[in-house]
Amino acid sequence: MKFGGTSVADLERIRRVGRLVAAEVAAGHRVAVVVSAMAGKTNEMVAWTDAAGRAASGLPESDDEYDTVVASGEQVTAGLLAMVLRNMGLNARSWLGWQVPIMTDDAHGRARIEDIPPEKLVAAMDAGEIAVIAGFQGVTSTGRITTLGRGGSDTSAVAIAAAVGAIRCDIYTDVDGVYTTDPRIESKARRLSKISYEEMLEMASLGAKVLQTRSVELAMAKRVPVRVLSSFVEPGEAVADTGTIVCDEEEIMEKRIVSGVAFSRDEAKVTLFGLPDTPGVSSKIFSSLADANVNVDMIVQSKARTSDSANMAFTVGRRDAQRALEIMKEHKAEIGYEDVTVDEDVAKVSVVGVGMRSHAGVAKSMFKALADKGVNIQVISTSEIKISVLIDAAYTELAVRALHAAYGLDQL
Amino acid sequence: MKFGGTSVADLERIRRVGRLVAAEVAAGHRVAVVVSAMAGKTNEMVAWTDAAGRAASGLPESDDEYDTVVASGEQVTAGLLAMVLRNMGLNARSWLGWQVPIMTDDAHGRARIEDIPPEKLVAAMDAGEIAVIAGFQGVTSTGRITTLGRGGSDTSAVAIAAAVGAIRCDIYTDVDGVYTTDPRIESKARRLSKISYEEMLEMASLGAKVLQTRSVELAMAKRVPVRVLSSFVEPGEAVADTGTIVCDEEEIMEKRIVSGVAFSRDEAKVTLFGLPDTPGVSSKIFSSLADANVNVDMIVQSKARTSDSANMAFTVGRRDAQRALEIMKEHKAEIGYEDVTVDEDVAKVSVVGVGMRSHAGVAKSMFKALADKGVNIQVISTSEIKISVLIDAAYTELAVRALHAAYGLDQL
Repeated sequence: MKFGGTSVADLERIRRVGRLVAAEVAAGHRVAVVVSAMAGKTNEMVAWTDAAGRAASGLPESDDEYDTVVASGEQVTAGLLAMVLRNMGLNARSWLGWQVPIMTDDAHGRARIEDIPPEKLVAAMDAGEIAVIAGFQGVTSTGRITTLGRGGSDTSAVAIAAAVGAIRCDIYTDVDGVYTTDPRIESKARRLSKISYEEMLEMASLGAKVLQTRSVELAMAKRVPVRVLSSFVEPGEAVADTGTIVCDEEEIMEKRIVSGVAFSRDEAKVTLFGLPDTPGVSSKIFSSLADANVNVDMIVQSKARTSDSANMAFTVGRRDAQRALEIMKEHKAEIGYEDVTVDEDVAKVSVVGVGMRSHAGVAKSMFKALADKGVNIQVISTSEIKISVLIDAAYTELAVRALHAAYGLDQL
Repeated sequence: MKFGGTSVADLERIRRVGRLVAAEVAAGHRVAVVVSAMAGKTNEMVAWTDAAGRAASGLPESDDEYDTVVASGEQVTAGLLAMVLRNMGLNARSWLGWQVPIMTDDAHGRARIEDIPPEKLVAAMDAGEIAVIAGFQGVTSTGRITTLGRGGSDTSAVAIAAAVGAIRCDIYTDVDGVYTTDPRIESKARRLSKISYEEMLEMASLGAKVLQTRSVELAMAKRVPVRVLSSFVEPGEAVADTGTIVCDEEEIMEKRIVSGVAFSRDEAKVTLFGLPDTPGVSSKIFSSLADANVNVDMIVQSKARTSDSANMAFTVGRRDAQRALEIMKEHKAEIGYEDVTVDEDVAKVSVVGVGMRSHAGVAKSMFKALADKGVNIQVISTSEIKISVLIDAAYTELAVRALHAAYGLDQL
């Protein structure tokens, strides 16, 4: 069971979490709980580390101390939840990253879990003790505290679940599951009872902020079934059946062609006009961006009809837009384009579904549905289980609703 | 170097601490720094643990989780100070209790340090690294976090100093040294440049709240010279010579008969009237108090002139006064006294000095000085280097000033 910062924001909520844990124990489960810092506490400590000179210096070697400071947040929550559980008459203890131990590399601030020897945890759980584990943190082989980066507690939870051989990893969050699309945009959106890892990965990376991408990748690699459910659910309801299970494709009986419609407004389109139509031009563009750590998502190249020159459009995250523009301007002579524009008024809308692998015509119905509503497609990109289109941001809601209906998700 | 909570209350003060550390390094010292939690943080966390049910349950087994929560305060300060020192161009790293390790017993919330293997710390310091150590905390042999109890950071500092073989342990605090008496009462009070461990112990336990008694005991046992100085001193001044050094009696050249006048208003006097003058009565009184964990300080017994019965007066801490009264009433039949009274309007005033060992007449001049001012003495108790008297609390300041003058401390 994993609870994020808003679920443990104060003692009243921590006691709520205690009741959810107690219900699982009463249902006969051995339980490990992974907790985040109380909401706001991590930000408070990050602000202190900034004031201590971290932001000013940017010294990477300061990050081990940053981790030492910030990891204290989860330490507090783990101790408090263990106390609350004991006061409910349950057997519980807290485990910090170094106590488990959750072994990581030494990439402070963004460490990766390398190993979780399960012996101590399993022995304690076998002895009937609820393990309350501080998420987000680990320890290096030299005994220094690390953190996994923002949202790392989801990853902690999945990794712990894999290490102890859990039958399921329940991620309690502020939504009650994974929906066919954002219910704030399409009221007919339905909660999915199951979704495959691959689909969830596409949904997560496309802007459905339910689970951290890293945790889904890990769950897929370790084949850990993950359940996403609301932390405001009643204890009895959680024990029974609610939320969305993220699992192996094979465990989903009713295959759908399209499982969901995702969208992201965090997009910007950079267009280069009048590129020389010679080999090596693309390489110059994208290596200059990669050198500056700017991630490029969609790419489309088009030959200008009336000349030998070509145009190239690509998308980057919106916060990278101005930097991408500067990099292009810096390399103008080298790349040899005539003009460059940036359009931040774009959105990416995607349909995702493992059924696409075996069904033709998914793209066709997508384009038709959008065309029927007068939505112009600027760029297209596809993967095995996903089709994404870049459109004018003003049409986002319209496009999402049209696609939701077109693939029959309204009647799921 | 040890800095308490008010010395590290915010980033500005932590940077001040950084400058004090830098000055010691510049003066050619290898430095270990012990820090407390930022002022207020421990209270915040204690309040959370109370809300988590610690206070309600009083379960002793909850105290390991209490320690896990509360120890995070020093962890934050240690990380922040290490960052600040690095940003000043110095080589530093934080050390948590379990990293040093500071091995303690498992008496959570009031653990005692059992061992500090110095190898890792010394190696790091020999390599030119400033060791920034989280005070107040340790770790059990089974790897659980412990805390040493309130004020435990002084003890951490002395224990670390002993473990690494430090030439001195500097305790930075909110006063600039140990005074002949409280300057708020006697403006002629002088700062002592040196005081012996024994005297400091008497001063500390008598209410001069400069150093924790435990840390002085440890310093005496390990023969660690301790310097008490103000954290608001200038870096250059601290490196030179300021504060008060607590050290071996032999290292104090100029022996004084009386070094200081201490006082405590945290006293209450319980008097039992009409006790049977038979063996075993005292035992009944004080074993009933001991069973209830009530500490008794001064005791005086007097035979009533006109009968076979006796009176007995003893003092307890003021917060224990009502409990002591209840215990006496509970055991009235068994003890067989006629009446009991409690007087909370009393104060204890003491003169302390190792010179008493070799000088007669100290008590005589004390009683004379008090008599001259019309101060009535209710109870007297003595040790090898101390004479204490219990008086009406209203005369406290008058008595302190009279004794300060009588022993020539005004002209020190």
